[in-house]
Amino acid sequence: MELTAQAQGVYPIAPTPFLDDGHIDTDSIDRLVDFYRQIGATGLTVLGQLGEAPKLSHGESVDVARRMIRRAPGLPVIVGVSAPGFAAMRELTQEVMAAGAAGVMIAPPNTLRTDDQIVGYYRQAVDAIGADVPFVLQDYPLTFTVQMTPGVIRRIVQELPSCRMLKHEDWPGLEKITALRGFEREGSMRHIAILVGNNGLFLDYEMERGADGANTGYAFPDMLCDVVRLSQAGRREEAHDLFDAHLPLLRYEQQPGVGLAARKYLLMRRGLLASAAMRAPAPALSARARGEIEHLLQRLARHDPRAALAPL
Amino acid sequence: MELTAQAQGVYPIAPTPFLDDGHIDTDSIDRLVDFYRQIGATGLTVLGQLGEAPKLSHGESVDVARRMIRRAPGLPVIVGVSAPGFAAMRELTQEVMAAGAAGVMIAPPNTLRTDDQIVGYYRQAVDAIGADVPFVLQDYPLTFTVQMTPGVIRRIVQELPSCRMLKHEDWPGLEKITALRGFEREGSMRHIAILVGNNGLFLDYEMERGADGANTGYAFPDMLCDVVRLSQAGRREEAHDLFDAHLPLLRYEQQPGVGLAARKYLLMRRGLLASAAMRAPAPALSARARGEIEHLLQRLARHDPRAALAPL
Amino acid sequence: MELTAQAQGVYPIAPTPFLDDGHIDTDSIDRLVDFYRQIGATGLTVLGQLGEAPKLSHGESVDVARRMIRRAPGLPVIVGVSAPGFAAMRELTQEVMAAGAAGVMIAPPNTLRTDDQIVGYYRQAVDAIGADVPFVLQDYPLTFTVQMTPGVIRRIVQELPSCRMLKHEDWPGLEKITALRGFEREGSMRHIAILVGNNGLFLDYEMERGADGANTGYAFPDMLCDVVRLSQAGRREEAHDLFDAHLPLLRYEQQPGVGLAARKYLLMRRGLLASAAMRAPAPALSARARGEIEHLLQRLARHDPRAALAPL
Amino acid sequence: MELTAQAQGVYPIAPTPFLDDGHIDTDSIDRLVDFYRQIGATGLTVLGQLGEAPKLSHGESVDVARRMIRRAPGLPVIVGVSAPGFAAMRELTQEVMAAGAAGVMIAPPNTLRTDDQIVGYYRQAVDAIGADVPFVLQDYPLTFTVQMTPGVIRRIVQELPSCRMLKHEDWPGLEKITALRGFEREGSMRHIAILVGNNGLFLDYEMERGADGANTGYAFPDMLCDVVRLSQAGRREEAHDLFDAHLPLLRYEQQPGVGLAARKYLLMRRGLLASAAMRAPAPALSARARGEIEHLLQRLARHDPRAALAPL
Repeated sequence: MELTAQAQGVYPIAPTPFLDDGHIDTDSIDRLVDFYRQIGATGLTVLGQLGEAPKLSHGESVDVARRMIRRAPGLPVIVGVSAPGFAAMRELTQEVMAAGAAGVMIAPPNTLRTDDQIVGYYRQAVDAIGADVPFVLQDYPLTFTVQMTPGVIRRIVQELPSCRMLKHEDWPGLEKITALRGFEREGSMRHIAILVGNNGLFLDYEMERGADGANTGYAFPDMLCDVVRLSQAGRREEAHDLFDAHLPLLRYEQQPGVGLAARKYLLMRRGLLASAAMRAPAPALSARARGEIEHLLQRLARHDPRAALAPL
Repeated sequence: MELTAQAQGVYPIAPTPFLDDGHIDTDSIDRLVDFYRQIGATGLTVLGQLGEAPKLSHGESVDVARRMIRRAPGLPVIVGVSAPGFAAMRELTQEVMAAGAAGVMIAPPNTLRTDDQIVGYYRQAVDAIGADVPFVLQDYPLTFTVQMTPGVIRRIVQELPSCRMLKHEDWPGLEKITALRGFEREGSMRHIAILVGNNGLFLDYEMERGADGANTGYAFPDMLCDVVRLSQAGRREEAHDLFDAHLPLLRYEQQPGVGLAARKYLLMRRGLLASAAMRAPAPALSARARGEIEHLLQRLARHDPRAALAPL
Repeated sequence: MELTAQAQGVYPIAPTPFLDDGHIDTDSIDRLVDFYRQIGATGLTVLGQLGEAPKLSHGESVDVARRMIRRAPGLPVIVGVSAPGFAAMRELTQEVMAAGAAGVMIAPPNTLRTDDQIVGYYRQAVDAIGADVPFVLQDYPLTFTVQMTPGVIRRIVQELPSCRMLKHEDWPGLEKITALRGFEREGSMRHIAILVGNNGLFLDYEMERGADGANTGYAFPDMLCDVVRLSQAGRREEAHDLFDAHLPLLRYEQQPGVGLAARKYLLMRRGLLASAAMRAPAPALSARARGEIEHLLQRLARHDPRAALAPL
Repeated sequence: MELTAQAQGVYPIAPTPFLDDGHIDTDSIDRLVDFYRQIGATGLTVLGQLGEAPKLSHGESVDVARRMIRRAPGLPVIVGVSAPGFAAMRELTQEVMAAGAAGVMIAPPNTLRTDDQIVGYYRQAVDAIGADVPFVLQDYPLTFTVQMTPGVIRRIVQELPSCRMLKHEDWPGLEKITALRGFEREGSMRHIAILVGNNGLFLDYEMERGADGANTGYAFPDMLCDVVRLSQAGRREEAHDLFDAHLPLLRYEQQPGVGLAARKYLLMRRGLLASAAMRAPAPALSARARGEIEHLLQRLARHDPRAALAPL
């Protein structure tokens, strides 16, 4: 199963579940993957930035990816392979592709500045991993400080046929989607899948601008699936109503740094993770913050019964 | 009227109104200030980052500040005086203080890195403007890339008595408010006012963490006033209900770059600005984006009649 | 007298002389300008980054520029007009051009990232100051963190005829000069003057790569003039011998931050400045550092009699 | 053999030798290590930033470190273990310490900003690798954009006894050495070894400020050994004479990016490396640049016979 430029729907970014002692929690991996399948996810991304990938040893990374791939037959699994050098990127890519991954995701190192540096980096990455490996271009300037214009993305897409998907997390980014879809319409760029990240903070309008879905890790991926479906079905106001109900919590989870702690806490509260544990370096979730999340859940439950969780 | 550390409530960040030809629109200045008074604003900030301050000549800056100050008797007016050098900062400070400003706001230059550099910068700024001029410390790492820990803020507050207020725009920032209020409780830092910025994206919980109000430019400052009032009155769920109703639009306006264009458009739609014009460099607000804002307004109007504007 | 793309030779970057009490030292301005003329400088740049421009009030800036222009009839004087906004840039430009400046120098704000942002910034700057005002493009990534590829410089040069000179301070930068001269040879870019900065750390080889001279502030601009002359006369080894003799001191002066303090100390020791005073913020030159500079001078004096200064 | 805080002399930063086909060149490894021993190096650092460490797979990294360690009995070997996460850092540390390394070197990730973030990072790193593993603190703001004040270094040294050495590459950095040695004298910081990097650009005066030697990769480490020896013997002018003779070439090699290509070319010209090959991404050394290096060698040979190489 190979990632194609026709990808659609929701590819949740899977967290890496840990036990309280820091070991990898394979039961929770299975539970998560089963959940993603059940809610209608159309794919899956593992070992992303928020999958705590850099905190895993090489062997652990391969194990986690393999387990997710095996548990999700029929679902394309994308594996994050960003690394400080091409040797490590190639090594991990070869192992996960051999294990059945659908493709890999590559974030730009935060030292890139000029247009040519960015395009050159992806050219060299493809040289390293092989032109036959489908890859996802991650465009997340808020975290990586690398700014890709629509024109630079077009250069990468046109030069590198193995680029199949854009993980779109620019901020602001609505006009970028419009610009890229405009390139496609005018024939200056081939079609690629655009799945949005940034915790889906603008998923509502991004769908209307031409996004194909979401590729992000919000703790209610079932909501993301519903919003994408409603939006694609033209049920605009219903899509917005559902999205808006989640926005206060979604915004809370989208905070840099502490956001992943909130997400893991929520996934634990939903019974999907056995523990909310993170490996160091990890921001602590204060009692105060947990209280705020519980409050947000209670308020959300008035609109979405999936947020009505058993009290602690 | 001098800014004190007991400041509370909402100090809207006033935009600088321009006519379509780029000239300053004094009628809209008057209209804005009157509106702020009428909705219960407790102060006012002019020539902030989003007041397009760097796009004004020195003379224009002084004129705009003076006009706002004169139009708002009884309201403390804070003037942004951030500048690449202390000579210009001193010059502008002296002129606006002579005109009756309550204090000035100083943002850190984006080259500061270490704790000592940050503290040293504010020490030198106070040397330049005079220790008798009350100032607001602006902490906005997302835009300025300067990261101030709670400990650094405490050093500044303790060393420089003229520091009266924190414009808190760190992101994430909830724990920072808690830390600073903790310093006050334990007696290691004197009290200062904390008014939150960042378009109020977390105003709901920031109030509960100990903020004294908001110092930001959201196009519905009347909502900010209401939320602050409800929150201070202990009417928690009402505060959240009102805030959540605005969150989809507020989030839209909070986007970097294009956000100010959205804000000016909204203020024009509300009849407060004659024109949404910005001076260069200015991001354009596409027809598509304007349509999204209109859609957000319609949806908001179901919850807040103030958003029910006459169609274009 | 208008700056043209045929500029050559050495345009010293003039420091702004202060008295010990912080006032501007007009006598030293006159002495400096006379010295520059006498050693064969072909032009002059004032109010550059190392001219402490941001530490001057607007009025002082105009006064300093005017005095230098009047004292240097026949010498083209370039004035740094970099500013956080176009209103201030335009204002200063108009005043100094009216006073007889040959052109202005514009550094990019350190927030620019993409190629289009850089080109767009200079387009807007020219809109602001007027297409009839010759300008120098300053390319100094080490300080400004803005990276301009040769292709971006070509876009600016081709689109904006008023761009007459490149102040080349990229590091490393030898290949950039070769690339730009290659563009000229192949006909894809018109000729512009390239004068090198970065304290002349690579002046020796930059001349051989096609630079037209130097535009920097090393405290022995007479050496820079000699090296440029020797290099242009094909006396290669003599040029290197002289340059190498100065390199230990030149390197010392090129240190960021403390470098300007070293330079002002040296100019004071040479009798050109009455005082080495800087305005705040200013790094102190420790007794230890002064001792090192004296040691470097003594060693240099064995090769260049101009460094044989009377003991303190 | 364990790295101690009494380390002195020259620890060359070993490049990783590649064959033209990109494979690791073990013969050149042996030749290099033998050379370092023969010229009087007192230690050795492998897999540093300029050892192209990120371009090696994990297995290759361990192999290279092991080979160097075995070839250098009696010489303490430091291994760079900087990694994007602590899992990889721990893994590599354990393997190289088991193989006989004397300690490891850790650079800060370029996202650290505040003093507390920096200290916290090293605290967590020591947690990860074990408090019994001696480590070198690398302070190189020009490349890593992390600024450590003397006070921050003191906090790390005092809190973490396994910190034994500072690789000092701040720029400017002379005052920092003086400040740290001052801390030692006043008793507020225990003694650590300070070996300077930054290609030794200020080695001459850094020795006089209190440095214990050099930890850098200049292609003439024999010169570094001589200068350190002369300086420690109080033969000041001889030290400067030798250093100054090398400065034109040393400066050329110190250029970011292209510098390593120049260094490998020089080591190949000296017969130490079989090839100057680098792995991608690698800046090309143009014919023009090679000509400049040859010219610098010829000029240097007039002062130092070690630069008199057989023509190509």
